Amino acid sequence: MITSVNNGQIKNIIQLNQKAKARREQGLFVAEGRKMFLEAPADWVSRVYLAESVTGDTELMSHAEGFPCEVVSDSVFRQMSDTQTPQGILTLLKKPSYIEEDIWGSRAADQMHPLVMVLEDLQDPGNAGTIFRTAEGAGVDGIFLTRTCVDITNPKVIRSTMGSIYRMPFLYVESVVSLKEQLEKHHIRLFAAHLQGRNTYDKEDYKGGTAFLIGNEGKGLTDQASQAADCLIRIPMNGQVESLNAAMAAGILMYEAARQRRG
Amino acid sequence: MITSVNNGQIKNIIQLNQKAKARREQGLFVAEGRKMFLEAPADWVSRVYLAESVTGDTELMSHAEGFPCEVVSDSVFRQMSDTQTPQGILTLLKKPSYIEEDIWGSRAADQMHPLVMVLEDLQDPGNAGTIFRTAEGAGVDGIFLTRTCVDITNPKVIRSTMGSIYRMPFLYVESVVSLKEQLEKHHIRLFAAHLQGRNTYDKEDYKGGTAFLIGNEGKGLTDQASQAADCLIRIPMNGQVESLNAAMAAGILMYEAARQRRG
Repeated sequence: MITSVNNGQIKNIIQLNQKAKARREQGLFVAEGRKMFLEAPADWVSRVYLAESVTGDTELMSHAEGFPCEVVSDSVFRQMSDTQTPQGILTLLKKPSYIEEDIWGSRAADQMHPLVMVLEDLQDPGNAGTIFRTAEGAGVDGIFLTRTCVDITNPKVIRSTMGSIYRMPFLYVESVVSLKEQLEKHHIRLFAAHLQGRNTYDKEDYKGGTAFLIGNEGKGLTDQASQAADCLIRIPMNGQVESLNAAMAAGILMYEAARQRRG
Repeated sequence: MITSVNNGQIKNIIQLNQKAKARREQGLFVAEGRKMFLEAPADWVSRVYLAESVTGDTELMSHAEGFPCEVVSDSVFRQMSDTQTPQGILTLLKKPSYIEEDIWGSRAADQMHPLVMVLEDLQDPGNAGTIFRTAEGAGVDGIFLTRTCVDITNPKVIRSTMGSIYRMPFLYVESVVSLKEQLEKHHIRLFAAHLQGRNTYDKEDYKGGTAFLIGNEGKGLTDQASQAADCLIRIPMNGQVESLNAAMAAGILMYEAARQRRG
C-alpha cells in the first residue's frame, strides 16, 4: 500500500491532474470516480488506484481484477484527488488517438449523413464536457476542436462528460478554415451558431451531412470561422438575453438535428 | 474610502456572499460585476461598492450616481469578492418578492398560455443560473422552485443567470404537489422530464399552458412529483448516456416549446 504522497506514482498523478503539458508528454490522463472506472474501455486503462477504504467493495474489486492496481491510504488518496468528495477510485488512462475516419467513418461507410460538432476556442471545461455528454445523447458521430480549445483530458472536462469521453471520437484540428476542405469532401454543411445569423436554427434542414460550429464563450466565433460556414443560424432569444451558454446553444442545435432525423 | 476588511459593511458583504441564512434574514443579496450592476433594476439597488481602481471609469461612475456608493481599496475589494478576477464593482440588492400572479400574470391576463418551469430539489448553482438565463431566452414566464432547491440568491447562481435574475419572476413553493392545484386552476399542464417517460418530448403539444418539471441532478424527481405530473416525457438518448445535465434537459424542453409557439 502506498502511504506517502512523495511516492513517484502519486506525484505523477497530481502532475497529470494539474498540467496539460504532462498529459501531452506522457499520453496519459486521469479519470476519477466509480462510473468513470466501470465504463472505461479495457485497452485504455493503464493503472487503477484504489483508496484503502474501498477495498471491501466487491463490485469494484472484481472489476479491477486483471488491471494493474495500487492501493493507497485514504489520506494519500484525498491528496491525489481533484474532487472535494473523492469516491476512492481513480483510473490512469492512455489518451485515445483518433483519425478523421473515426469521426465520420461508420456513417459515411453506410452512406449515411454524419452529424459532427466543431468547437472553436472553447475554454470552459464544464461546457466542453457537457457538449460531449449531450453529443452522445443526440447521436453525434464525433467532435472536432481547434487547438486553442481547452484540453479535453483536463479532469474537469472528463468529469463533466459523465463517461461520454470514452465513446465520442474527437480530433484536434489547426483551425476551422483548415477543416473546411475535409467537410466539403464529405458533403457536410457547416452551420455556425451566430448572434447575427439570418436564419432561425429550426428552419434549416439537418438531415444531410451536418456540422455545427460553436465559438468561444466570451468572444464568439472568429471572423474566419464565420466566413467558412455555409450558413449562419440564430437561436431566437427573448427578453434581454444577449447569448445562451455555449454548451446550451450546442445542445439545442444537436437535439434539433436529432429531432429532424427521427422524422 | 474603506480600507479595512474589519469595516462592518465589508464583513456583512462577505457574510451575504457565504451564507443563505444571512441573505434570508436581511432580505439582501450581492451581485458582482459590471453587467450585473448596469442591468440591475434601480429600485432593487441598496448600495454600490466600487474598487478604487475603477473610479476613473466614467460609464460606471455616471451610472452609479444617484445610488448610495462606497469606494473601497483594491485589496479590500479582492477580499469581499467571490470571484477569482473581480471586476471592481459589486452591487448590494434587495431580494425581490414575487407573488403567483407575477409568474403567469401578464400572459394569463391577455388570455395567453403561460409557459413556466418547476424545479424540484435542484442543487447545482450553475444549473439553476443557466436555467434562468435560458428560460428568459426561450420566453418562459416564471419559475417555481421547491424549498429544497439551491438558494437563487447564491452568488454562483446570480453570476450564471447573466442578468436574467432581474427579469425572470420566481417563487419558492412547499412542494410540487402543493403547487399542482394552482397549475390546474390556470389550465397549465405539468410535463415531467423523466427517464421512464413513455412519450418523446417533441411529440407533445406545448402551445397551451405548459409547465416543465425538472428534478434533482443525482436522484431525479421524487415519486410524488412524478405522480403529480399530467404527462411524463422523455428526451431520447443515444449511446450509453443515462441522463442529460439538468440544465441541458430544461433548455431542450423550453426551446422545443418556443419552437412550437413560433409556429
